[in-house]
Amino acid sequence: MPRMNHFADRLIAAVRAKGNPVCAGLDPRFDQLPASIRDSAIRTHGKTAKAVAEAFIEFNRELLDALADLVPVCKPQVAFYEEFGHEGMRAYAETIRHAKARGFVTIGDAKRGDIGSTAVAYARAHLGGMSITGGERVGFDSDALTVNPYLGHDTLMPYLEIGAQNGHGLFVLVKTSNPGSGDLQDLKAEGKPVYEHVAEMVNKLGEKHRGASGFHIVGAVVGATYPQQLTELREKMPEALLLIPGYGAQGGTADDAARGFHRDGLGAVVNNSRALVFAYKESAYAKEFGEARFADAARAAAQRMAEDLNAALAKRRA
Amino acid sequence: MPRMNHFADRLIAAVRAKGNPVCAGLDPRFDQLPASIRDSAIRTHGKTAKAVAEAFIEFNRELLDALADLVPVCKPQVAFYEEFGHEGMRAYAETIRHAKARGFVTIGDAKRGDIGSTAVAYARAHLGGMSITGGERVGFDSDALTVNPYLGHDTLMPYLEIGAQNGHGLFVLVKTSNPGSGDLQDLKAEGKPVYEHVAEMVNKLGEKHRGASGFHIVGAVVGATYPQQLTELREKMPEALLLIPGYGAQGGTADDAARGFHRDGLGAVVNNSRALVFAYKESAYAKEFGEARFADAARAAAQRMAEDLNAALAKRRA
Repeated sequence: MPRMNHFADRLIAAVRAKGNPVCAGLDPRFDQLPASIRDSAIRTHGKTAKAVAEAFIEFNRELLDALADLVPVCKPQVAFYEEFGHEGMRAYAETIRHAKARGFVTIGDAKRGDIGSTAVAYARAHLGGMSITGGERVGFDSDALTVNPYLGHDTLMPYLEIGAQNGHGLFVLVKTSNPGSGDLQDLKAEGKPVYEHVAEMVNKLGEKHRGASGFHIVGAVVGATYPQQLTELREKMPEALLLIPGYGAQGGTADDAARGFHRDGLGAVVNNSRALVFAYKESAYAKEFGEARFADAARAAAQRMAEDLNAALAKRRA
Repeated sequence: MPRMNHFADRLIAAVRAKGNPVCAGLDPRFDQLPASIRDSAIRTHGKTAKAVAEAFIEFNRELLDALADLVPVCKPQVAFYEEFGHEGMRAYAETIRHAKARGFVTIGDAKRGDIGSTAVAYARAHLGGMSITGGERVGFDSDALTVNPYLGHDTLMPYLEIGAQNGHGLFVLVKTSNPGSGDLQDLKAEGKPVYEHVAEMVNKLGEKHRGASGFHIVGAVVGATYPQQLTELREKMPEALLLIPGYGAQGGTADDAARGFHRDGLGAVVNNSRALVFAYKESAYAKEFGEARFADAARAAAQRMAEDLNAALAKRRA
């Protein structure tokens, strides 16, 4: 089978193959890693950024290996790697590489945004890499990148163009999951909230980049913590894939998240970070798995989340 | 003299000491570096990201050394480093480190923005670093960071808090210099453009963080390419330092940029990237300096820019 070269088609195929729309948020925090991983890294590398990077790589590798047959998509949050400088970014690159090798569709959660000529550099950095005059291919090369629309549509074009060239996609922040997201996003301008203006930008950017799945390569981030807006935005952007944060720790339920899907149960992925990758610390899993089996705990949490979402989607279909 | 621990006071002191408000934009592009630097790096490291990183470090080091007694502020654009993966980010860290050692006030142009818990990681990454349980201090540690307001005021708080703790500051994108900046920023909501709502956010965030200079640590990015809005926003945010891009290559003139200053000639810095660091390629400097003296060409261009801005500021004062 030839590798599908359309981002949305690949994502939809992965969701179908795994039978659920779970996105595993790979947001490592050094002080929350299993002590065995932390101690071993510090023993070898001292209290350095390199130790943190090696611990992140090991933690994510075990998680990804445990989740590979169950979870279709993963989304490392760049901030948690960038916090540890260039060594942290090495761990980020390695995480993306391993996730792709294990068959995950990868979304780099970087929320980048800059003027056009600079956005080209970000797009190259994250959506396909570039080679140095025929030499080493560099950059991070995730399948998709989250991007910030505040600077305007011209600043999103480089992600679209470079993404389309390389079979990659983007997710534009439309309505984010945090408490203050309304400050600018909900302002009413010309009769509709700013987030609707952004939704129209998403539709316009995507219209020439539709795949066989019916979805285009310009997705949108809409939080499960705002279910009413999620319903509204699902309707406004019928061909956009939605990336839905805010499930779990932030308070969004499966029924909330389900509003981001079409009636056929497709069209979105739902992210879970902390409650999934650190499931081994939660009372529901701590006893059964314990620290040593953190990856199995994450797998159990992902399984439960998949069932939770699929039940909510089935209810909606009925 | 004790090190001033208020970002705005330090920036104003640096501008006074150097007698001009020039900000050197350190935006290296590998294919535009002098051939001698590129060739030497590739000879040693092959066509790898490491070669690019070493070339960037060398190029920036020579530039910074040549500009140190003349230019108060420098602003590396993170995207041009991130493009080359974790090795590029190593060059970014080293550039910040060298710039600070040579007395520059450094602004990391990263335009980061994410929900609160994640913004903490970005703020730590760029505004003071953190230490690993008493070990190595990591991260990038610029004096200030550019940030994106689209996610709301709660997502700017971590930069403010961590910045204030460490004597650092932030610059919030208000009205950017690019052609499409109006798409969202100019939308009229509740009787005023979105960028004015952001300006009010800047004032509110900054009000408890005023220094002896009269400015607070929450600055604003406003492009010289929109002189009317620059005039308006200077008045709306009297205590905010402005970071003004768009001078030179993007079309903004010294008279345009001067609108971002108070009558006393303070309150802003004006950035120039390409036309300054790659001055050796411009007809005005190519003949006199040539490739080998690229740093002297940058110095001559910075000198001319300083005179250009100071003349425009003097005209306004008169």
